[in-house]
Amino acid sequence: MNYNDYMQMALDLAGRGAGRVSPNPMVGAVVVRDGRVVGKGYHQALGGPHAEVNALDDAGPQARGATLYVTLEPCNHQGRTPPCTEKILQSGVRRVVVAMADPNPDVQGGGNAYLQSKGIEVKCGVAEGAARRLNESFIKFVRTKRPFVVLKMAATLDGRIATRTGDARWVTGPEARAAVHRMRHALDAILVGRGTITADDPQLTTRLPEGRGVDPIRLVLDTHLRTDPKARVLTQDSPAPTHLVCGPEADAQRKSALTTAGALLLETPLHEGRIDLDALMVRLGGLQITSVLIEGGAQVAHGALAAGIVDKVVLFYAPKILGGDDGIPMLHGPGPAMMAEAIPLHNVSVARVGEDIVIEGYR
Amino acid sequence: MNYNDYMQMALDLAGRGAGRVSPNPMVGAVVVRDGRVVGKGYHQALGGPHAEVNALDDAGPQARGATLYVTLEPCNHQGRTPPCTEKILQSGVRRVVVAMADPNPDVQGGGNAYLQSKGIEVKCGVAEGAARRLNESFIKFVRTKRPFVVLKMAATLDGRIATRTGDARWVTGPEARAAVHRMRHALDAILVGRGTITADDPQLTTRLPEGRGVDPIRLVLDTHLRTDPKARVLTQDSPAPTHLVCGPEADAQRKSALTTAGALLLETPLHEGRIDLDALMVRLGGLQITSVLIEGGAQVAHGALAAGIVDKVVLFYAPKILGGDDGIPMLHGPGPAMMAEAIPLHNVSVARVGEDIVIEGYR
Repeated sequence: MNYNDYMQMALDLAGRGAGRVSPNPMVGAVVVRDGRVVGKGYHQALGGPHAEVNALDDAGPQARGATLYVTLEPCNHQGRTPPCTEKILQSGVRRVVVAMADPNPDVQGGGNAYLQSKGIEVKCGVAEGAARRLNESFIKFVRTKRPFVVLKMAATLDGRIATRTGDARWVTGPEARAAVHRMRHALDAILVGRGTITADDPQLTTRLPEGRGVDPIRLVLDTHLRTDPKARVLTQDSPAPTHLVCGPEADAQRKSALTTAGALLLETPLHEGRIDLDALMVRLGGLQITSVLIEGGAQVAHGALAAGIVDKVVLFYAPKILGGDDGIPMLHGPGPAMMAEAIPLHNVSVARVGEDIVIEGYR
Repeated sequence: MNYNDYMQMALDLAGRGAGRVSPNPMVGAVVVRDGRVVGKGYHQALGGPHAEVNALDDAGPQARGATLYVTLEPCNHQGRTPPCTEKILQSGVRRVVVAMADPNPDVQGGGNAYLQSKGIEVKCGVAEGAARRLNESFIKFVRTKRPFVVLKMAATLDGRIATRTGDARWVTGPEARAAVHRMRHALDAILVGRGTITADDPQLTTRLPEGRGVDPIRLVLDTHLRTDPKARVLTQDSPAPTHLVCGPEADAQRKSALTTAGALLLETPLHEGRIDLDALMVRLGGLQITSVLIEGGAQVAHGALAAGIVDKVVLFYAPKILGGDDGIPMLHGPGPAMMAEAIPLHNVSVARVGEDIVIEGYR
């Protein structure tokens, strides 16, 4: 194993914190001495010990003279927990390998520099691309105070998310649906339009193949508060709250009925008669929501793209053709006049998920 | 190199015959003696010598005791040329490795068995999958007397082939467009609707990066013969003819004007007011057209899928989102009520072509 392999191990450990550490980043750490892994750890839960502490505690006295691999620059400040840099110095570690520097412009950084000043050998930038992808939500959030927004859609190869009758069972296969639940587990919030609630009465919970995961905070765009108080998102048993995002003119009686039913209300300014998604993102950032998964429908997807709030697009395609122009399209709303005005995606990747195809890209 | 490598070399040679041997299959052959390639050949042109003959002539006396790799079972009958089996016996080749048996139910096959009866060691089925893909048009044609039909589309990720104004320059990048020209080169005919001629006045010729290729026979679905006699497909310089496929009621004056302009007319029965594509395929098979590339537009694509004539779908996706529901969809026409009625694709493959993504599948 070389240092990239150890860092990959640390990144895999970090990923286990998905869904449980926000608004903190996911971090993993591995302690290696004489080519042997003597300690492993990751940031398991918000408020709990950092990855470095867990890994060094796991290594115990064997950390002396060892190398610590950590996926993010160790913190050098007192936060919810004491600074990791002190823990590292006390452990006797000789060398620290870091995937990426702390991207947070607000914190007293300088963990790497501090360790170097104390005689520790520090190498930064190993597997940096993978580390950045892992914490893409955190990086966006700490830099902009707005959530990282992922638009997910599932369609046939001819770009239809349902038939003309609204039937969408199923577009994609079980593996793709499991991948979506993993996204719900990892991201802080899920956003849908009220139309999706009315049409499908979905749960919007996280059901992983291995059992329940962390439910995302549910956000329903519902300008006029037309959601049925008996909708599953309000009546079901879930640790996550459901926010109805309404406009300033929403009816007081509806407000009362829906809050009684368990809804939280998020009053947001309108833009051309619809929820101002840009303003909503600022608001969500203020609520420490670092990431949002947009799951539909076609009007919300169109609105999100048109508002420019989407950071990443994840498109699942089933290997089939619906075969007409009357099915529900991926996006509902006006498009541009010229092909050159299409929205380009960057860093596009393509993979198979079961029988389906997933195409990801960034704005 | 092992026998799979030699067969791959033979398959690559065979592919050089693309566009020039139809309605014959593409065939390649390699002669190997003591681990050294001593002869290569392929079927270069309809009426010309077969691949085995070219490879054995290339090897000369070195063929004695050698192994012949050939992508299709050698012919054992007098066709346009003498039987290859006799040439093989004369050459002194000791062993013949064959990718696939002759799929033609009409010819006196048995080349493999005949060679074995004469003491030649014959092994059949090496790289058979690749050999079948290479000659998928030929296989369909000899079995059914109908052309192999490939439906090609180029769309944005949200399934739009053009904007609401009809602008489609460009959906995909130069590599994908070059791949389409390679398909035009390889397939016998290209089929479009009259609307495409009116909207784009395309050439429908083959322009490969390395120069002109073989132009496909052009087929324009034009029930009422409304094509402009000045359309490029009629006036340009191309060795391939342009057939206008019209209904039985087409106007005599239009017929006269268009034939004067150089068009060939293919009168075909109608089905629900449109050209009966099933009947057309039978007709094209009778004209020895073994393969048809359908290039659009959305109505022709829909009609071809609905008529069940499509064998293979090749979809190019640009890594961009058009962003509305008013652009031109991939398919124009009614779709099914239930998602379970979507048209499934089989043996689906996904690849990158330049910046674009190509998804292929079979019906």
